[in-house]
Amino acid sequence: MNTLVIALGGNALQEGGQPATAENQLEVVKKTARLIAPLARDNRLLVVHGNGPQVGRLVLQNEYAAPITPAMPFDVCGAMSQGLIGYHLQQGLSEALQKAGIARQAVTLLTQVVVDQNDPGFQHPTKPIGPFYTQQEAENIAADKGYTMREDAGRGWRRVVPSPDPKEIVELSAIRSLLNAGFVPVCVGGGGIPVLKDENGSLYGTAAVIDKDLAAERLAEDIDADTLLILTAVEKISLNYGKPNQTDLSVASADEMEGYAAQGHFAPGSMLPKVQAALRFVRSRPGRKAIISSLEQAPQALEGRAGTRIGAS
Amino acid sequence: MNTLVIALGGNALQEGGQPATAENQLEVVKKTARLIAPLARDNRLLVVHGNGPQVGRLVLQNEYAAPITPAMPFDVCGAMSQGLIGYHLQQGLSEALQKAGIARQAVTLLTQVVVDQNDPGFQHPTKPIGPFYTQQEAENIAADKGYTMREDAGRGWRRVVPSPDPKEIVELSAIRSLLNAGFVPVCVGGGGIPVLKDENGSLYGTAAVIDKDLAAERLAEDIDADTLLILTAVEKISLNYGKPNQTDLSVASADEMEGYAAQGHFAPGSMLPKVQAALRFVRSRPGRKAIISSLEQAPQALEGRAGTRIGAS
Repeated sequence: MNTLVIALGGNALQEGGQPATAENQLEVVKKTARLIAPLARDNRLLVVHGNGPQVGRLVLQNEYAAPITPAMPFDVCGAMSQGLIGYHLQQGLSEALQKAGIARQAVTLLTQVVVDQNDPGFQHPTKPIGPFYTQQEAENIAADKGYTMREDAGRGWRRVVPSPDPKEIVELSAIRSLLNAGFVPVCVGGGGIPVLKDENGSLYGTAAVIDKDLAAERLAEDIDADTLLILTAVEKISLNYGKPNQTDLSVASADEMEGYAAQGHFAPGSMLPKVQAALRFVRSRPGRKAIISSLEQAPQALEGRAGTRIGAS
Repeated sequence: MNTLVIALGGNALQEGGQPATAENQLEVVKKTARLIAPLARDNRLLVVHGNGPQVGRLVLQNEYAAPITPAMPFDVCGAMSQGLIGYHLQQGLSEALQKAGIARQAVTLLTQVVVDQNDPGFQHPTKPIGPFYTQQEAENIAADKGYTMREDAGRGWRRVVPSPDPKEIVELSAIRSLLNAGFVPVCVGGGGIPVLKDENGSLYGTAAVIDKDLAAERLAEDIDADTLLILTAVEKISLNYGKPNQTDLSVASADEMEGYAAQGHFAPGSMLPKVQAALRFVRSRPGRKAIISSLEQAPQALEGRAGTRIGAS
């Protein structure tokens, strides 16, 4: 049986423009679950999800409520978002699996991911998180807490944190145990809780955003998966996206894809990390397959009838 | 090797009177981890923790920040608290295990626990959660959201939710897989995320507080544990607690303990559910052992040199 890692994008968890209530999240998650659960019939399935909007709201909530209770740091907000999203996913997926007659259960394992203190990302924080501030407020926060603050596209000042590469999935062997026992692990949520490892092997949470597609790729390599399926809002990767000469790609070799990336066809922080994750995976071992497609077309994409497949060479 | 379920009380996670910051929580959790990690040398260990103060703060935070982002319902707050606490516990325990030379890793599994809609608890909600309101506000909330509101000891009005009995641990088989694979599962946190099950087996979150000691007992029975060790702030159970004639108990039979409980020696919502959990466990199968003791005396209690041991008959 093939081993399949699915990376779920934001649209799999929340509908744009709808209030971010638990009810709306659960409804979207249940729809997502119905779409991907059937893939567990013929695959050993693992599910990784993003957490951008959710952890963003947790940070806002924590800062807003700081007058009444201490705000939790960013790593802890990440852990809470794994609880928040994993709960709904395991409930929705297990229900969909049962209704599809697949005798598997989805379970959520809290996952820490080690990043490297020397990662260049730490020198150049890029990911804005939390509330907007005035310049004066931002300067006070920077002086007070040591945060890096940046002006964000004319909308005000925000904290920025690094987006380092995922190096090691701390709970990998537990994920493997669950997978081998027949479960569908929901894991490495939001790219994992970012931790640094000291010389004694002790772990320490750090404020960073690990890209969930790169973390899913790390998992796929380390769990020895056959296929990495990255699901997002579009059915195929496009060249010249949104322009009159837009071209959708059904298949591309890794080398071709790398060329397109170098030409700037893919937006940083959006399609580019998905392409990077796909490239890493197919190059990590011959025979590995990476597909980028939409949530709705997931089954067809896996059969080669939709999506963009990135080939090995 | 014996199988041991430890139920951690609030003092294992947070120091009274200290600000509830993540740093303080992590410090207390690491101390707790150093105390209990050695027990994993000679026992297959599972760890259940409370979440009262933590989920209480999450509810306050959510209500306070409702003007900027939708408040999550109580079941979702429970899931988030499992992330919040489980993250620190698995990090602290794994570090302590490593330092003790025990080749095991602690991992957190999000856990749902089924409760019965017909549980008498649903007719008589008793557990206050969230902020205090004026009587007028409370009446408006009751009319608006259908919550049960109660006056709380002259301090104002609060929402009360039921405290039903834990019936089924949804992720039990995954917990067993992790345990059998050599991990120390951190699970059933806060008594588990409370869910109702419909006739098709689908699960739905509900607003309820499952007593974490009774949930740990449910786990101990279902995982076929030998020993249930309930750790709290006092070293032994006492009769006439806090009175001149206070008597500490080292050993008591289940029948004796039941008699003491009937005489009102144990406070409801505090020592009473611990005693009930212990009674259920020792009566569930001959040879099962329940011990109530303090966190600090955990190793001694397991060796019969501290704590209160509840015998079978």
